[in-house]
Amino acid sequence: MGALAATQLLGLISLSVTLDNGLLKTPPMGWMAWERFRCDVDCRDDPENCISEGLFRDMADRLVEDGWKELGYEYVIIDDCWMSMLRDKQGRLQPEPSRFPSGIDKLARYIHDHGLKLGIYADMGTHTCMGFPGTTLEKIEIDAQTFASWGVDYLKFDGCYSNPVDQMLGYPLMSKALNATGRPMAYSCSWPAYLGGLPPYVNYSLLGEICHLWRNYYDIQDSWDSVLGIVDWFFNNQDELQPAAGPGRWNDPDMLIIGNFGLSVDQARSQMALWAMMAAPLIMSNDLRNMDNSARAILQNRVAIAINQDPMGIQGRRLLQEKSHIEVYWRPLSNSASALVFLSRRTDMPYLYHTSLAKLNYEAGNYEAYDVFMGSMVKRLNATTDFTISVNPSGVVMWCAR
Amino acid sequence: MGALAATQLLGLISLSVTLDNGLLKTPPMGWMAWERFRCDVDCRDDPENCISEGLFRDMADRLVEDGWKELGYEYVIIDDCWMSMLRDKQGRLQPEPSRFPSGIDKLARYIHDHGLKLGIYADMGTHTCMGFPGTTLEKIEIDAQTFASWGVDYLKFDGCYSNPVDQMLGYPLMSKALNATGRPMAYSCSWPAYLGGLPPYVNYSLLGEICHLWRNYYDIQDSWDSVLGIVDWFFNNQDELQPAAGPGRWNDPDMLIIGNFGLSVDQARSQMALWAMMAAPLIMSNDLRNMDNSARAILQNRVAIAINQDPMGIQGRRLLQEKSHIEVYWRPLSNSASALVFLSRRTDMPYLYHTSLAKLNYEAGNYEAYDVFMGSMVKRLNATTDFTISVNPSGVVMWCAR
Repeated sequence: MGALAATQLLGLISLSVTLDNGLLKTPPMGWMAWERFRCDVDCRDDPENCISEGLFRDMADRLVEDGWKELGYEYVIIDDCWMSMLRDKQGRLQPEPSRFPSGIDKLARYIHDHGLKLGIYADMGTHTCMGFPGTTLEKIEIDAQTFASWGVDYLKFDGCYSNPVDQMLGYPLMSKALNATGRPMAYSCSWPAYLGGLPPYVNYSLLGEICHLWRNYYDIQDSWDSVLGIVDWFFNNQDELQPAAGPGRWNDPDMLIIGNFGLSVDQARSQMALWAMMAAPLIMSNDLRNMDNSARAILQNRVAIAINQDPMGIQGRRLLQEKSHIEVYWRPLSNSASALVFLSRRTDMPYLYHTSLAKLNYEAGNYEAYDVFMGSMVKRLNATTDFTISVNPSGVVMWCAR
Repeated sequence: MGALAATQLLGLISLSVTLDNGLLKTPPMGWMAWERFRCDVDCRDDPENCISEGLFRDMADRLVEDGWKELGYEYVIIDDCWMSMLRDKQGRLQPEPSRFPSGIDKLARYIHDHGLKLGIYADMGTHTCMGFPGTTLEKIEIDAQTFASWGVDYLKFDGCYSNPVDQMLGYPLMSKALNATGRPMAYSCSWPAYLGGLPPYVNYSLLGEICHLWRNYYDIQDSWDSVLGIVDWFFNNQDELQPAAGPGRWNDPDMLIIGNFGLSVDQARSQMALWAMMAAPLIMSNDLRNMDNSARAILQNRVAIAINQDPMGIQGRRLLQEKSHIEVYWRPLSNSASALVFLSRRTDMPYLYHTSLAKLNYEAGNYEAYDVFMGSMVKRLNATTDFTISVNPSGVVMWCAR
């Protein structure tokens, strides 16, 4: 079946659904298991780290007790490898009983009792990426109902072991099925990532109608190279991607790896800054039980979070790529404010970058800027004032200007 | 002139020199300006960081006051960009007077008064890499004498703007000239790096006779990719390089970048561990005035330093490259001890690696192992005992076994 035939087929499905159900007016914040804990199902030898109800309860505890929840990190999201290999007699997905003996409904209650929300994972295809039961077209409705019955608040719908036609049918069908349950659930679609992430294969208008967020590109890994690869792709394609985002509809460059093993302090600040500029979901995947203070401070930076959560929801753009390997990013914010990020791609030493707000397209006038990671103010900044900032190798300077 | 003719020409030079002058029986330790401070000559706008006598005095102060000297970090080494663009009327190199107003001799006295040693930089060629006056063949003698007269203890002799024939003549000539001054000076040769680092172009037997250490490969940069690239090259070529090293003759994979901007804590431990295994010079290039505690603890790890400084001076080797992307390195040490490093090239999560000492070629018997970075002992380890270690992504576990 060609793409055209599939499009016609898609027309048969009622698309009166829209997920404009008031959810995710700002990008979701929370914690997700995948990048840090992968498909560790070895609860015998690695009980603290295996994918089990204990892990998610631990993270819920930490979110509440360590100040994350009050900052907005509210979703606790299960990723792949939670399922039993078999559906139950009624054809419903069920968790692997040895690792989730209390069931997902009880876990959801635990999460809700902590004032948090529970996310879960399924896959639009014959199997999940790690080989657990998939959600083929005829299972979409029952799976949506199962998740709703458990009290799930968020679904990540992956796309391994599917094909473009099934995706074109399945992602909208799941949107409709989730809506039909009556339970408000955020809906994260991996669809575009399986189509290369770009128009014309990806229809971001349609995605914005059926999904609250979507993964456009490859999975993040625990390395600076991976972060940079993602940043490159999102900003190289900003003309296509930036207009797709807005309140209730977000591009998702994948999880925050801050607090893990692969990023220096400067690189961690860079991920936080650039994810804030992208209006990206702030979904950590780390071990909240073991995190050093510098990572915690970066992830809990209130101004970086406020920039990410700006109610206008306008995704930022890369303004400049200098020959010096300094790059400048800009995002408009509410109340005539804006955010600037100066990123150094250098690998030598701090670079003294000379510019002015006028050179960065700011209108004439007087400004002041707050340095987000240094916590200091730059006052009396006229648009024409030349200034110099020192940007560390693989680090950023992030300003909130007004 | 072909290589053969040059070899014949070289035969005309008396090579009765040997630098077996008792220096560097263990790899040198200290601090060098280049990787962190490069050719920053802007003392007006960047007075704290420019290449000037103040910078080296600052670092000498820190080496003494912050506990580095007592651990063995004793050399303070000037790199490129210290010179005046003009030699003096007697044809001698002189420091740029605005940045070194007191002269190198006074700086040497300051360094010596602190119980430290001073290193300096020159270039076997028409210019230094950054375009300052080079040491062409006819200047070798006067430059060696100048350095000796200033009280210099260590010369890094770079090779920009030279050719293989000049190098073949110049590097041995400088060795002879340094010896002829009567002042014991350590001699670091960049020669092999300019010849690709490998036999047959590089003669490591000759290098071992004329130089105390040598740079074999590209300059390090402030990134994990750079560290890994260097590690790959040195261990991929270990059959050529490992036998070249020994007391008084060291391969130099370049500076330690720990404490700068590009490495995570795990990656910093990996550099320290692998440099210790390589019997590499432990020459930091960082800002000793601004360093976080985790970097300091890694660089000041007494056991890692002791492994690096083992008096047998046998360079370690890579034993295994597993399909799991765990690699195992081994170095024999004095008193029937040995060091093991388990490196993870993974970018996902800590990996549980199962092995035994017998599988790592250890003889039958009982051992105990000290975990260098965790500070814990593993006792009652029979060679045949299976054990499991958890290795972080881009991190190491380092053991000292006996």
